[in-house]
Amino acid sequence: MITALAGGVGAARFLTGLTKLVKEEDLSVVVNTGDDIELFGLHISPDVDIVTYTLAGIVDEVKGWGIRGDTFRCLETLRKHGEDTWFGLGDRDLATHLYRTQRLKQGFTLTQITSEICDVLGLGVKVLPMSNDKFETRVKTREGSMHFEEYFVRRQAKDEILSVEFVGAATAKPSPGVLDAILDAETVVVCPSNPVVSIGTILSVDGVRDALKRTNARVVGVSPIVAGLPIKGPADKMLRSLGVEVSAFGVAEFYSDFLDAFVIDTKDAGAKGRLEQLGLDVKVANTVMKSLEDKVALAKVVLQH
Amino acid sequence: MITALAGGVGAARFLTGLTKLVKEEDLSVVVNTGDDIELFGLHISPDVDIVTYTLAGIVDEVKGWGIRGDTFRCLETLRKHGEDTWFGLGDRDLATHLYRTQRLKQGFTLTQITSEICDVLGLGVKVLPMSNDKFETRVKTREGSMHFEEYFVRRQAKDEILSVEFVGAATAKPSPGVLDAILDAETVVVCPSNPVVSIGTILSVDGVRDALKRTNARVVGVSPIVAGLPIKGPADKMLRSLGVEVSAFGVAEFYSDFLDAFVIDTKDAGAKGRLEQLGLDVKVANTVMKSLEDKVALAKVVLQH
Repeated sequence: MITALAGGVGAARFLTGLTKLVKEEDLSVVVNTGDDIELFGLHISPDVDIVTYTLAGIVDEVKGWGIRGDTFRCLETLRKHGEDTWFGLGDRDLATHLYRTQRLKQGFTLTQITSEICDVLGLGVKVLPMSNDKFETRVKTREGSMHFEEYFVRRQAKDEILSVEFVGAATAKPSPGVLDAILDAETVVVCPSNPVVSIGTILSVDGVRDALKRTNARVVGVSPIVAGLPIKGPADKMLRSLGVEVSAFGVAEFYSDFLDAFVIDTKDAGAKGRLEQLGLDVKVANTVMKSLEDKVALAKVVLQH
Repeated sequence: MITALAGGVGAARFLTGLTKLVKEEDLSVVVNTGDDIELFGLHISPDVDIVTYTLAGIVDEVKGWGIRGDTFRCLETLRKHGEDTWFGLGDRDLATHLYRTQRLKQGFTLTQITSEICDVLGLGVKVLPMSNDKFETRVKTREGSMHFEEYFVRRQAKDEILSVEFVGAATAKPSPGVLDAILDAETVVVCPSNPVVSIGTILSVDGVRDALKRTNARVVGVSPIVAGLPIKGPADKMLRSLGVEVSAFGVAEFYSDFLDAFVIDTKDAGAKGRLEQLGLDVKVANTVMKSLEDKVALAKVVLQH
């Protein structure tokens, strides 16, 4: 049994490789919901959708999100209504959000609804939203405080970050199955996702960090930082705002209380010795996944003892 | 100033002709909202949308509803989620429903939102939903009681009707502008719509029937029944359930307390004398509108004293 902690695009790409090596039913993925946002009255779970769409093979691989070949007629029409349409919502994709919103109103949980969505997509992987409670990642910049997606998508992560806030973290409970998935796994993989707003959110949910420390599973991280830069996204600005070194080492140190092994990129091979001083089993591999072969090769390194 | 009472397709077609003869800003249309329905958490106003889309020239003329050339990707995807997708919701059309639902949640009224939608569509006609209050037309058949749209669209109006119920009629107030539009008009046109579920709903709203009796406007009706059959829809089953004769005469009698003039089809010319005995100014014309010329010609007859 393997459990992965995941954000969006980076994690989803890595997991595509992993599912080529392990049976879908042996894989649980705990997904960040700090990015969840309400737009046009719809509950949108960006990371959950990226993970499910990617694993179901329907994601728009160029964008990394949304459904391949989707159209944007509804959104274009909303724009004519004067609506702010900075967040990409495709016509097919909208069905997911309408469905989710309606089911939430009917009293179902994100966990239940995500499981239903996985069934529709024919996905055997267990996708677990990290929490069914309200949790919102906010970013403070000189422009003010804003929802993470507003910072990331609308402002294209341009502004320097003063601080990151997890609204709801103090009360959010892990969703059913999350702690067990960590405690009962043989391997826990911390995907190459943003350590602050993708993994850090999951870690902030009550009991998760503790379960990672207590589990007998081998906990393996994959560095999202290569040669001092994030593969994708604003992880550098995020880490800097926390005073964390923007490097594979900085990330490993951030995870060091629960990590057993860490996979770094060949470009960071020089940091191996320093990382081993953290007590980690360090592997060096190509972590910049372009082809499916790259993804599978990286997954092999992660699973290798 | 002209005020029209309208249902969906029949009224919208007639109004297309009327707008060729009168200035848009001189026309107010009071539209039935008894068909309004919530689907997938969205507030849908079928008749309001048919009227606005038709007058804006974007309606799918073959279907009579929806937007020409619209796609149904979202609905097709909802179907995969096991959702009941009997009601046609196009991708562009969805923007209207998302917008309306969101604005309602923000506390705006149907009247205000409809006015905003008209602005976006570049429509100068004042489209007034009959009421901003909850009003639901339900149909009782041997299968049970159901929402009018469920009867009309899902069951294709097949079943015999035992009774029609207007839920909310006892408390629904006319929306702002409705009574004044009737009282201040020179001409009030009762469009060729279903006398029970399109016009009857409007008439049942507090004060409307009384305003029609009190107004100095010439009140002209157009028969939706030709040669004993409705031009479109289940008006025959509806009238029968009320014990009203399914004929131009039956409709005129149903409206006789406020009607000054009535336009009947050439096929019903033989009923002219009987209708005149109701005290009506009766005109005979082609009421089956196929071309734009037909619509304009019928509008001319309606406006002619």
